[in-house]
Amino acid sequence: MIKYIFFDIDNTLFPTSEFAQLARKNAIRAMIELGLQFNADELYTKLLKIIERLGSNSDQHFNELLRELKVQRPERFIAAAVAAYHNTKTSILPYPEVPRVLLALREHGYKLYVATNGNTIKQWDKLIRLGIALYFEDVFVSEEIGKEKSKEFFDKVLSNLKIKPNECVMIGDKEDKDIVPAKATGMHAIKRGNNGINDFSDLLDILKKL
Amino acid sequence: MIKYIFFDIDNTLFPTSEFAQLARKNAIRAMIELGLQFNADELYTKLLKIIERLGSNSDQHFNELLRELKVQRPERFIAAAVAAYHNTKTSILPYPEVPRVLLALREHGYKLYVATNGNTIKQWDKLIRLGIALYFEDVFVSEEIGKEKSKEFFDKVLSNLKIKPNECVMIGDKEDKDIVPAKATGMHAIKRGNNGINDFSDLLDILKKL
Repeated sequence: MIKYIFFDIDNTLFPTSEFAQLARKNAIRAMIELGLQFNADELYTKLLKIIERLGSNSDQHFNELLRELKVQRPERFIAAAVAAYHNTKTSILPYPEVPRVLLALREHGYKLYVATNGNTIKQWDKLIRLGIALYFEDVFVSEEIGKEKSKEFFDKVLSNLKIKPNECVMIGDKEDKDIVPAKATGMHAIKRGNNGINDFSDLLDILKKL
Repeated sequence: MIKYIFFDIDNTLFPTSEFAQLARKNAIRAMIELGLQFNADELYTKLLKIIERLGSNSDQHFNELLRELKVQRPERFIAAAVAAYHNTKTSILPYPEVPRVLLALREHGYKLYVATNGNTIKQWDKLIRLGIALYFEDVFVSEEIGKEKSKEFFDKVLSNLKIKPNECVMIGDKEDKDIVPAKATGMHAIKRGNNGINDFSDLLDILKKL
């Protein structure tokens, strides 16, 4: 019987990729609004290449974009871009059914956890802004655990909690980071998105059948 | 005749100190909401001491507070504090008459500038969030100029713009950083706040009399 449910955050509890795309486009619109004389589509394409090169966690994307464009006195545009980017990223909303389902799961006695890759403070920031931080017993982030999600990650988390894998289910959107390693540990696993479920509304029923 | 008006930002265009105090109190409330078991007033007093010690531009205030309190796994509280702090600081509003007065000054042919101490990107961020960045011909920040507001700062700015000091007025809240050095350069000066004006609504009339 399932007692413990582990959730991934990004693209599982909220549409991370949609918000990231919107945040970048809003950042570009803000720079143009402040007088940057470039085409929005061209800026977006350049920005995506920079993000790929520097990694998505760098805080130098806009600095580098303006450097490549040889913009003099770029501070006003950096300020505009970062403000618009953050305004969007700090207005994230969960998938609409998520808060209701998390509450129902708790009321049915399940213990809820988060298992996520990333920076500990950044991942907590998302849970707080989504308004769902208090639903979880604890939050396990790869940075704190010392390894990315893998069989070893889940073995360590379950051993810390002194719970058995067959009483646990991992719910996430990534086959390689969520589903495969959770199953390797002996946990159940449910995929959100492609070839999985697109909504958590039936999650209580699905859990009863595991 | 006055042609050029220079504005300070903090406590001149918006009530910086009020928002800073609110932001810190909101940060403390957010940590308590997430389960930090300390008294709000005690936390606020400790925080003010840390800000005084590390300087107001440090980004380690909350990290240091939680370190002093010996809180284990502090990331959730840092995330909560920083999110609440930024939510407040990014919701700054100008003194209510400011946008209307800036627009009227432009319509009367005055050229508006900003002259401010601080970090260039942070000062631009404030103007953008206040919704008044486009009113100014240019923004002069001590970091970019290479010196804090002083006779030398204003001499350099006026020389760059090729304008005469007696056609200029500096408007700011600080006797030592705004009024005294502007006058030393030969500019006019108007003080906002204590022993000055508390509202810019009569600024057009005041300027005509200079």
